[in-house]
Amino acid sequence: MSSHRFMSGSLRDSHVGQQVLLKGWVQKRRDLGGLIFIDLRDRSGIVQVVFNPETSKEAIETADKVRSEYVIEVRGEVLNREPSTVNENLATGKIEVAASEITILNKAETPPFMIEDETEVSEDTRLTYRYLDLRRKPLQETFKMRHQTTQAIRNFLNEETFYEMETPMLTKSTPEGARDYLVPSRVHPGEFYALPQSPQIFKQLIMMSGFEKYYQIARCFRDEDLRADRQPEFTQVDIETSFMSKEEIQDMTERMMKRVLKEVKGVDITTPFPRMPYYEAMDRFGSDKPDTRFDMELVNVSEIVKDSGFKVFQGAVENGGTVSAINVKGKAKDFSRKDIDKLTEFVKIYGAKGLAWLKSEEGTLNGPISKFVSEEEAASLTDALRVEDGDLILFVADKTSVVHDSLGALRLKLGKELGLIDQSQFNFLWVTDWPLFEYDEEEDHYAAAHHPFTMPVREDIEKMTTAPAEVQAEAYDLVLNGYELGGGSLRIYEKEVQEKMFEVLGFSKEEAEEQFGFLLESLEYGAPPHGGIALGLDRFVMLLAERTNLRDTILFPKTASASDLLTQAPDAVSSAQLEELHLQLGGKALDTNNEES
Amino acid sequence: MSSHRFMSGSLRDSHVGQQVLLKGWVQKRRDLGGLIFIDLRDRSGIVQVVFNPETSKEAIETADKVRSEYVIEVRGEVLNREPSTVNENLATGKIEVAASEITILNKAETPPFMIEDETEVSEDTRLTYRYLDLRRKPLQETFKMRHQTTQAIRNFLNEETFYEMETPMLTKSTPEGARDYLVPSRVHPGEFYALPQSPQIFKQLIMMSGFEKYYQIARCFRDEDLRADRQPEFTQVDIETSFMSKEEIQDMTERMMKRVLKEVKGVDITTPFPRMPYYEAMDRFGSDKPDTRFDMELVNVSEIVKDSGFKVFQGAVENGGTVSAINVKGKAKDFSRKDIDKLTEFVKIYGAKGLAWLKSEEGTLNGPISKFVSEEEAASLTDALRVEDGDLILFVADKTSVVHDSLGALRLKLGKELGLIDQSQFNFLWVTDWPLFEYDEEEDHYAAAHHPFTMPVREDIEKMTTAPAEVQAEAYDLVLNGYELGGGSLRIYEKEVQEKMFEVLGFSKEEAEEQFGFLLESLEYGAPPHGGIALGLDRFVMLLAERTNLRDTILFPKTASASDLLTQAPDAVSSAQLEELHLQLGGKALDTNNEES
Repeated sequence: MSSHRFMSGSLRDSHVGQQVLLKGWVQKRRDLGGLIFIDLRDRSGIVQVVFNPETSKEAIETADKVRSEYVIEVRGEVLNREPSTVNENLATGKIEVAASEITILNKAETPPFMIEDETEVSEDTRLTYRYLDLRRKPLQETFKMRHQTTQAIRNFLNEETFYEMETPMLTKSTPEGARDYLVPSRVHPGEFYALPQSPQIFKQLIMMSGFEKYYQIARCFRDEDLRADRQPEFTQVDIETSFMSKEEIQDMTERMMKRVLKEVKGVDITTPFPRMPYYEAMDRFGSDKPDTRFDMELVNVSEIVKDSGFKVFQGAVENGGTVSAINVKGKAKDFSRKDIDKLTEFVKIYGAKGLAWLKSEEGTLNGPISKFVSEEEAASLTDALRVEDGDLILFVADKTSVVHDSLGALRLKLGKELGLIDQSQFNFLWVTDWPLFEYDEEEDHYAAAHHPFTMPVREDIEKMTTAPAEVQAEAYDLVLNGYELGGGSLRIYEKEVQEKMFEVLGFSKEEAEEQFGFLLESLEYGAPPHGGIALGLDRFVMLLAERTNLRDTILFPKTASASDLLTQAPDAVSSAQLEELHLQLGGKALDTNNEES
Repeated sequence: MSSHRFMSGSLRDSHVGQQVLLKGWVQKRRDLGGLIFIDLRDRSGIVQVVFNPETSKEAIETADKVRSEYVIEVRGEVLNREPSTVNENLATGKIEVAASEITILNKAETPPFMIEDETEVSEDTRLTYRYLDLRRKPLQETFKMRHQTTQAIRNFLNEETFYEMETPMLTKSTPEGARDYLVPSRVHPGEFYALPQSPQIFKQLIMMSGFEKYYQIARCFRDEDLRADRQPEFTQVDIETSFMSKEEIQDMTERMMKRVLKEVKGVDITTPFPRMPYYEAMDRFGSDKPDTRFDMELVNVSEIVKDSGFKVFQGAVENGGTVSAINVKGKAKDFSRKDIDKLTEFVKIYGAKGLAWLKSEEGTLNGPISKFVSEEEAASLTDALRVEDGDLILFVADKTSVVHDSLGALRLKLGKELGLIDQSQFNFLWVTDWPLFEYDEEEDHYAAAHHPFTMPVREDIEKMTTAPAEVQAEAYDLVLNGYELGGGSLRIYEKEVQEKMFEVLGFSKEEAEEQFGFLLESLEYGAPPHGGIALGLDRFVMLLAERTNLRDTILFPKTASASDLLTQAPDAVSSAQLEELHLQLGGKALDTNNEES
């Protein structure tokens, strides 16, 4: 037969009369009035195939044997459906294929769960049979979108004359940052490679190699305890450029995002993206990655309530803390005391000791703390929070970081629960003017807020050793709908500055030399000014595909305990393998020769 | 100033009169008659910048300070050079830039070696300062070509509706194949991930997931002792399809190669590529990856000499071996007895016991063995080897595998040394009709000639257990200029066949279940017929870029002892890290609970 392969989901009434060859999976078989109907599925979608005992006796005999998930090949003619049987919910619903031949390519046992758009089956079962889970339409579409996203990114960057380049996976372990995955060396007993947490140092070396514009869609690894939105291996769009300013890198990133949103989602987004300094983001949204799709911003009312009769407010301000509030518009009546108690429990998760509240009712602010609020204070609060009748005001008074964390989280929670978020929006935002350092109270020294290669603002270099907390970084984070999509910065390209950086971070000269000597040396031989950005691809695809679980965007993801339920990795290995790697299993290391720092 | 950035190497006489901004590295500074000339280099090439004391006193003062590899920014006007100073060897040689401003962006110490096209410095030094080595034009061009190659491949596959998909790096260790790199698990004491030797199993699972057309430019890992053309991590273009025949996969691969050669090299290649069965390749070229750019084929003369008076010939044939010969055309006079002694030493590397020879001189075959060669035999040899006056015939008589290995290697050596190879050719070739198994004499059982998922020819399935050596595989290797560029096959998609395969390979039912149970199970739920190919990208780029060292095609390669000389990986790690991973350094494993098989 001369019919050639068509994709099931692509057939339309324009194909009527054509002989087609189809290959795919049996979604469903129904017997009806002597006819057999098979919904045939391939990656493009589903088409109805009908077997008529009159047109091909042999075919219908075979069709009678097939069951769900059998793999079959069908030849037939595309016909219009009877008007009464047209299925408007199916792209191919106006037509059907009258089969003349069928071949069973492979049989299938009854799968542990049906291949349907929605499934109730546990995630563990889905991950164990990931190849079945992936046959489901929402996942098929997600990975098609992931493909489209990476190609849109590549096409854009190629046009911008970037080179795609590959950095090593077997790299050197550095104690900075998250925990490394280690790879024992067979050739060098007692030594290990580390899988890269990011290609950061290599992409800087690529700039020192004169390639000027680099990108890579790079696998990265972090051996951290996993949360819902973390995976041991993840993918980032890694970009580095020489000679470009912060603004040029941001502009380029914006054009890339515009291109992706247009090509993948058909959405036009506005550029340039808004810029918001870090401190403003914390103050207004209680977050360094504000979701700007809705208001209900935090309002710092410390100045208004600093002399308040309410000791909690007064005390917080006196102790250098903050009092902030959000206005839950028009919800005074909807929140009972019990409801507010629940919100109080919620903010306690973030370290807040309590949640104060006022309701605006018929021109007055009522609630347990109203007796402590002077008329003047009430007027100022009403003004600052734009309070109208029926509004609910929620306050947290505490250390500033606790106020931001708790009220920021509460804002997000209420925004979601009250349906304030326009899900169709893609709100991009640059968070800028980051501090270079953050103080690590546990370790009692300064740590790099981004990473130790981030360039300080030039005027602040002097302050690196004298007033580290005041030093601003040439760093910028890209935020989308309340998610940190990525972060970038200009990098240090002067040896003296990099040495100063290591010094502030608590490295001795010897430690800096041992860990990063090659990088310091590379800065001596003509390192160009450079900078870049890294974007989390998995998360980006999650937002584009409107999924809520990062595992839905990774083809073969791992569980929270970093296991692959499908292949059963990790697994025990033979003692011969361990011996070759000069390793023994067991508790405390006996050999302390390899101990460091 | 309003001038905008230009790339140095892109300036031509069409730019004369334009104000330009350039950024890059000082290749060279010369002072001449009060002027300062700087050759400014960026990734696009070099342009001459001239500083004139009259036009900008300040600029020339700064220019006077710069040295090789300083990073500078220059503004100036493009001018025609004086006719006498035009440099025809430089793309920008007709013009120069008259600088009005210069800024030093970064200084440079004198580098350990000069950034020149050709360098005499040791490879170790080049790898230690890889970022300097990479500034050299041949490497700049190689990595530009690598970028172009991967994009040409991606563009082709995208157009063919393939999805690019990412498979995991933290996978399960399987004892098959080469040695795995292992990654200890922190969460699961005593267990390990393995870095993938290839995404083979995952790409098959992708087919079972219904994605139908997959590709990935995938990093792979093998912990093997390294030869010049091996690296611990390497990159392959990994392709898998469902429902396609062997011929369709080969055709698609050919069109991809045609596209790459055209886009990257501007070369038109002819498709379809020739096909040669494995046994024919071995017989005619002594190699499963024949270099077909020149003749000098092996001729099997066993039949002619089996009754020869020369006992070595007769004995080889009697013992089931082979006598083959090559004809070194017209070189009888050029090879002295001493020269041939050297060739004899060469074939001994490959296990041959000796090299017999005859020279055709004035119509007769002369040489030490000529007295054993009858007139009839001489005539037959002359005929079979198309001997003409002045030809040199070289014979190896031995086990067939030794004949092929030694004479195949000798053919290549002579082909290169005698300049018989047309370096401008790209000779692609499919080697087909592979055996499914090869007998492993050391282990005394059959091993998979390709990998254990390769499909046998359907008619041979029955012979898998009864006559494994006779079973042919649905496998095909792509050869380019004597290099194995890649290999592919149809895969087993029926559980019974896969079980039979494991059985022949010596797995017990339990072992097969433990190692590959998930794969066997996946074949039960509607696995489509599928197959694919994997191409070695590093080697492909090496051939395209006309390099001879694989390390020149990998950005940050490792040495023969798998070290990164730049970052000093692998390295010792802290005892705290080891403790977290439940590992101790040391010799024999104490804990045998984890021992397998």
